[in-house]
Amino acid sequence: MVRVPFEEMKTVFERVLKSRNVREEDAVLCAKLVAETSLEGVYTHGAHRFIQLVTMIDQGIIDVHQKPTLESSYGVLERWDGNRGMGNLNAHRAMSRAIELAKERTIGVVALKNTNHWMRPGTYGLMAAEAGCIGILWTNTMPLMPAWGGVEPKVGNNPLVIAVPSSEDPLLVDMAMSLFSYGKLESHAREQQSLPVVGGWDRDGNLTSDAQAIMDSKRPLPIGFWKGTSLALALDLVVAALSGGRTTLEIHGEGGERSPSQVFIAIDLASFEDREQILARIDASLADINASTPLEEDKPVRWPGQRRNEIRAENLAKGIPTNAGIWQRILAL
Amino acid sequence: MVRVPFEEMKTVFERVLKSRNVREEDAVLCAKLVAETSLEGVYTHGAHRFIQLVTMIDQGIIDVHQKPTLESSYGVLERWDGNRGMGNLNAHRAMSRAIELAKERTIGVVALKNTNHWMRPGTYGLMAAEAGCIGILWTNTMPLMPAWGGVEPKVGNNPLVIAVPSSEDPLLVDMAMSLFSYGKLESHAREQQSLPVVGGWDRDGNLTSDAQAIMDSKRPLPIGFWKGTSLALALDLVVAALSGGRTTLEIHGEGGERSPSQVFIAIDLASFEDREQILARIDASLADINASTPLEEDKPVRWPGQRRNEIRAENLAKGIPTNAGIWQRILAL
Repeated sequence: MVRVPFEEMKTVFERVLKSRNVREEDAVLCAKLVAETSLEGVYTHGAHRFIQLVTMIDQGIIDVHQKPTLESSYGVLERWDGNRGMGNLNAHRAMSRAIELAKERTIGVVALKNTNHWMRPGTYGLMAAEAGCIGILWTNTMPLMPAWGGVEPKVGNNPLVIAVPSSEDPLLVDMAMSLFSYGKLESHAREQQSLPVVGGWDRDGNLTSDAQAIMDSKRPLPIGFWKGTSLALALDLVVAALSGGRTTLEIHGEGGERSPSQVFIAIDLASFEDREQILARIDASLADINASTPLEEDKPVRWPGQRRNEIRAENLAKGIPTNAGIWQRILAL
Repeated sequence: MVRVPFEEMKTVFERVLKSRNVREEDAVLCAKLVAETSLEGVYTHGAHRFIQLVTMIDQGIIDVHQKPTLESSYGVLERWDGNRGMGNLNAHRAMSRAIELAKERTIGVVALKNTNHWMRPGTYGLMAAEAGCIGILWTNTMPLMPAWGGVEPKVGNNPLVIAVPSSEDPLLVDMAMSLFSYGKLESHAREQQSLPVVGGWDRDGNLTSDAQAIMDSKRPLPIGFWKGTSLALALDLVVAALSGGRTTLEIHGEGGERSPSQVFIAIDLASFEDREQILARIDASLADINASTPLEEDKPVRWPGQRRNEIRAENLAKGIPTNAGIWQRILAL
């Protein structure tokens, strides 16, 4: 493990992106979003995923020259075409537009088809929360889990984000419908660490906390068993319907995911006359979570998103912990 | 177990409700909704919950004379006050209005505060799907699960429904954020059946499939461990914000739940020029789920909602299987 300063990480990402003909302003924003992901402790979706991003550019899956375009408008809902551009830049544009719509109309919904992997989902939820909006967004993915009772992967793990502003940091829920994301499985396998709880089945159909065995069987554990695959299927069909884009069934191509569909919903709390009361209720609920008696004496109960700025400050001060081999590979890109 | 004919069940419910001064038309609709819930196999939220409904009327928690009223309007989003009326009738009215809004504006959102337990959540998702709309709805509940790492119940199990029309039956996902709802725990405890998988912790902190032990400890297993409580907390804060209503923290009263908040979202597929293509994509995805190789040879893989009409037809023909003791208690109400 090496500690890479945030500014250095950003600069390296920018250089690599520009070497792939990414426009200056796009390279700057993309590098910032990816480096901030690692900065905030979501290592699996930051630097550790950057190599995959560059590979997708090199393979022509991502077309760095494309920008998302408005396709049709239905009042608060707009459909955009991602034109197979950079996934995180498309998502950033889509959430920006959803926030604009919400500022005008209380709710804004941007459904995006024909895009690419959006890297860290939480990024776009935080954008909404920082604009005083509730953010709700999800994506479909290629098939990563069998349907309940089935053998072959049929259902995406379809990450869902809900971000809620509070008087201090936003609540941020950012979760795949498998108990562990493939990014988490990969990092545990790479570091030969056991998962904290069972995370899927091995090839013999036994529940296991061995990440590599789960990747081999392609049977990660859905959250809540049958509930996780049901919710994932519903999220897939809804996002494809709203965007007019592809379903999980259709985005499975040679070597990976092709043109997933995403939706970005913003709801502006400033629309409501009782905004202050809403925030007071949210603050009280978060404080009540923290007031829980901890199961283990030295482990105070936190709400999701609460430690984000603590990790950010630590990593800004000390550098971002990064797998040494991965950092060497990034430097060589 | 007795088999109660659907018409008989409806008639008995109507009689009991009228004896509690429920208006004729309200009694008819309420009885139909509850009996249909059992008819479609969701026994925990149908007849088995009817006694609790009547108890809440007798205790004055539900005011049978009240109807929901429009409080404020923000374009596609309306806030309604449930005025502590009948929970399922309030929810029925709210989803009807969300569908009307969606028919005018593609999306309709009705946020409802100050209501009561809505009985079977899926009922209102099916209303949307039968009107050609995607239905998304959820409620908060009183605290039923500890926050992750905590001891006392702090988080609701906050059921979430997503219903998606297809060319045949709708996909219907109807799930609490605990692996098993309290209704399911109660019925397993009553019939002294072991849960199919571990469903929570006992008083000693061991994972168990003993439903009574889980009810005693008040520590049901959230779906996806920490993910389930995170998602439940987010759903709670969003629904309270949208409705201007109470959070889980605020709806915990003497002996149960007081004035939960709910949201009903409808999205009309008929708004989209490519509606036929959307439905074809949905149908293809559902067919692909059914095309899964089953893990167990004689257990074909189904999608959520697929068996609903099969169960309905069987129960219409043979009568609705009902716990004999519960049916006796209902007859005596």
